[in-house]
Amino acid sequence: MRPQYTNVTPQIIDDIITLMGKNSVFIDAIDREAYAMDETALLDPVMPDIVVKPSDTAAVARLLAYADSHVIPVTPRGAGTGLSGGVLPVYGGIVLSMERMNQILEIDTNNFTATVEPGVALSDLCAAVEAQGLYYPLHPGEMSASIGGNIATNAGGMNAVKYGVTRHHVLGLEAVLADGTVINTGGKYVKSASGYDLTQLLIGSEGTLAVITKIILKLSTKQANREILFVPFMDLQNAVDSVPDILRLPLLPTGLEFMEKDIIDIIERYTGRVMPCHDHKAFLMIIMEGNSIDAVTDYFAQVDTICRRYGSSEAVIPGSEHAKRELIESREKFYVALKKYAPLELMDVVVPRSQIALFLKKVKEISHEYNIPAVAYGHAGDGNIHLHFVCTTMSLDEWKRKLPSLLNAVYTTGISLGGTVSGEHGIGLEKIEYLAGHIDTGLLRMMKRIKHSFDPHNILNPGKLIDLG
Amino acid sequence: MRPQYTNVTPQIIDDIITLMGKNSVFIDAIDREAYAMDETALLDPVMPDIVVKPSDTAAVARLLAYADSHVIPVTPRGAGTGLSGGVLPVYGGIVLSMERMNQILEIDTNNFTATVEPGVALSDLCAAVEAQGLYYPLHPGEMSASIGGNIATNAGGMNAVKYGVTRHHVLGLEAVLADGTVINTGGKYVKSASGYDLTQLLIGSEGTLAVITKIILKLSTKQANREILFVPFMDLQNAVDSVPDILRLPLLPTGLEFMEKDIIDIIERYTGRVMPCHDHKAFLMIIMEGNSIDAVTDYFAQVDTICRRYGSSEAVIPGSEHAKRELIESREKFYVALKKYAPLELMDVVVPRSQIALFLKKVKEISHEYNIPAVAYGHAGDGNIHLHFVCTTMSLDEWKRKLPSLLNAVYTTGISLGGTVSGEHGIGLEKIEYLAGHIDTGLLRMMKRIKHSFDPHNILNPGKLIDLG
Repeated sequence: MRPQYTNVTPQIIDDIITLMGKNSVFIDAIDREAYAMDETALLDPVMPDIVVKPSDTAAVARLLAYADSHVIPVTPRGAGTGLSGGVLPVYGGIVLSMERMNQILEIDTNNFTATVEPGVALSDLCAAVEAQGLYYPLHPGEMSASIGGNIATNAGGMNAVKYGVTRHHVLGLEAVLADGTVINTGGKYVKSASGYDLTQLLIGSEGTLAVITKIILKLSTKQANREILFVPFMDLQNAVDSVPDILRLPLLPTGLEFMEKDIIDIIERYTGRVMPCHDHKAFLMIIMEGNSIDAVTDYFAQVDTICRRYGSSEAVIPGSEHAKRELIESREKFYVALKKYAPLELMDVVVPRSQIALFLKKVKEISHEYNIPAVAYGHAGDGNIHLHFVCTTMSLDEWKRKLPSLLNAVYTTGISLGGTVSGEHGIGLEKIEYLAGHIDTGLLRMMKRIKHSFDPHNILNPGKLIDLG
Repeated sequence: MRPQYTNVTPQIIDDIITLMGKNSVFIDAIDREAYAMDETALLDPVMPDIVVKPSDTAAVARLLAYADSHVIPVTPRGAGTGLSGGVLPVYGGIVLSMERMNQILEIDTNNFTATVEPGVALSDLCAAVEAQGLYYPLHPGEMSASIGGNIATNAGGMNAVKYGVTRHHVLGLEAVLADGTVINTGGKYVKSASGYDLTQLLIGSEGTLAVITKIILKLSTKQANREILFVPFMDLQNAVDSVPDILRLPLLPTGLEFMEKDIIDIIERYTGRVMPCHDHKAFLMIIMEGNSIDAVTDYFAQVDTICRRYGSSEAVIPGSEHAKRELIESREKFYVALKKYAPLELMDVVVPRSQIALFLKKVKEISHEYNIPAVAYGHAGDGNIHLHFVCTTMSLDEWKRKLPSLLNAVYTTGISLGGTVSGEHGIGLEKIEYLAGHIDTGLLRMMKRIKHSFDPHNILNPGKLIDLG
């Protein structure tokens, strides 16, 4: 059921042009088309009625106050690299693109903070920070993503074993509430016991509670060396079983990924490069940072000893910066390669890491039962598994018909093993019914009450994350 | 203005005894007296009408459902070691003591988690975890505090430079809402992008949103060596100025504390022990962990070189476990020693760490203007400063009369430097008007709306954290 929103009439468009300035408002179809989709596979685009590109917080506040009083949906958008349809304007209305608010306002080398606007690309942030001798350690994979988008979805990535996820690196926010009120949360300090933590509540709220307009990020120092160990196994179970022992070593790796032969074949075809040890069945990729090459090599020797106990073959350390970069880039391109390989549905269930092997075993049983192949890889160090159900064995129609029941079975399995719906991609449009169907009902009820207390007219990214219908 | 709460009549007491069982309900004055205070100095005790000690979540749920429908205040209480009056039952009613829910339910050595009840003492948790070869790295100082209390106030402590604060170590919660609904948030995973993060919202909410009944904590591996470097300076400014350079080294210390001569004198009188280098004016205490003594010693040599540039004298590394323990214990006892030394008011303002020196300079000017001495020490690594305004220069009455204006001046100063009201002690009863007077008004309004959405009858710890009147 479509909520009762006001249609965007010529009068409303005129009002918005008056409020925002002519150069910030886009109404031609050709200009709106690029704002109808994100990177999610197989979603039908939804055109917004109007796209607005503000340049400052005051403009965002004016727009929201207007949209709230006229009950017009507003869908905030970063770089559009999301994987769950979170930026599709499903009820039309306004897409609020943050692309022009892309300034790095300050890098504070005394307090180790960066203050940025939400439209800054992750790649630009990393480059600017490293130029000052500091480090923003998250690596969600898509470097063209915006920081605002990373915060909206609490993006994770390969370095989460050591560094955690986006929420662990945000110290404060400026945000505009639905009624146009600007609030400031947190600050350049790592500790606070001064009331409810609205910073943390807004992180991961996918644009449904407020529009983030400024971000204070925590920075780190960078360690001198960063190396990769690539360990081949003849069996996925053995690879995954070695993980708890690796994590019991006194040092924590930066990242710990697993992958199987099928994704290696697909990526080799996509990139035209041969991956190391590609005749094996399963692989661990361990990323480690340290202050000397010896420290990292010592660590890798310990990891190798553990992996050998679980039947691994000769491990590989890429010898050059070029080879390292190729390996990381190949890992980053898994999703793009898969999207090109076949129509697919992507899940990013997270389970307690001790349950990874059992979860994957059950997923393969479900996959077999439905005759829909599953390609799995992901973050072995934190239990976040990327599952791709590909359409290679039946017609697209049949596959689409079978999919909801298959996904439901997989979510039920993941949650029964102590996991949850999404580790890092967010709920967006795609997983809304699965979240509603699988999380604690009391918790869901409180989420709805919180949404209502922030956004009583449900104008902020409606139809996402929770279903208020 | 006292909200309209129902008086606790003999009928209500009978109802609660029927609900909870006779052995869980305490109504004699002698039994209630111990629940009228916490460790805050100079607060007037407030007796609850009734103390209830449930043994399980279902009992908590029954009690809250009853209290909510009868509009009776419920003040949740851990070990009573708080420093801001957060557990005083200011409107009478029920004190809900979690002391009997003190079981460590599981230590999961594969997933590195501990699942505990809220009444577990921090000391018991640490011992149990270390017996399994794992590590709970927070060190808020008061080891008899309960984990539930640590979570309610988002406790910090000495190890926050490296390990962050309590909120960074909580993976999931079971909690009872005001109406008796039991909710479960999070789980044994470090990553989630599955809706609003209620775990993070409940942490630091000081018992005003829900009663926490079960906690999943994240554990770490322990490093082999933990050493202390004690560096004397002739001037506080120099000590504090060296901090950003220390933190720019590639390795992060576990803790980085500063203290001045006056607190050293007071602690020496209290413990009867002589502190190292006690003829100096200011000190840094750096705690470092590493996997070998060489790694730690190398690090200390680098720190020493930096401190020398800022005029430090010969640094001291306590040579024995005993000497190390004594030094840490002395630091932990600063507050107790001060409480014994003179009537005092305690603030724990946090500022960006680059502003510590300027903040302390301004505090001393204010202290001088009011003729009320300030004793300062605290967490130089994270900008969290403990200020004690002692009553040694005037009558208690005069001191009490002058104090509110002095505190207001200090909060205004801290916040104008980019800081906030409390770094780790919480708002409780004592700082409620200072929070209301100093934080963003839009933020405060949202906190009130969130409180209302969780607890519409305002039964949970009323009169704390935010003033709803």
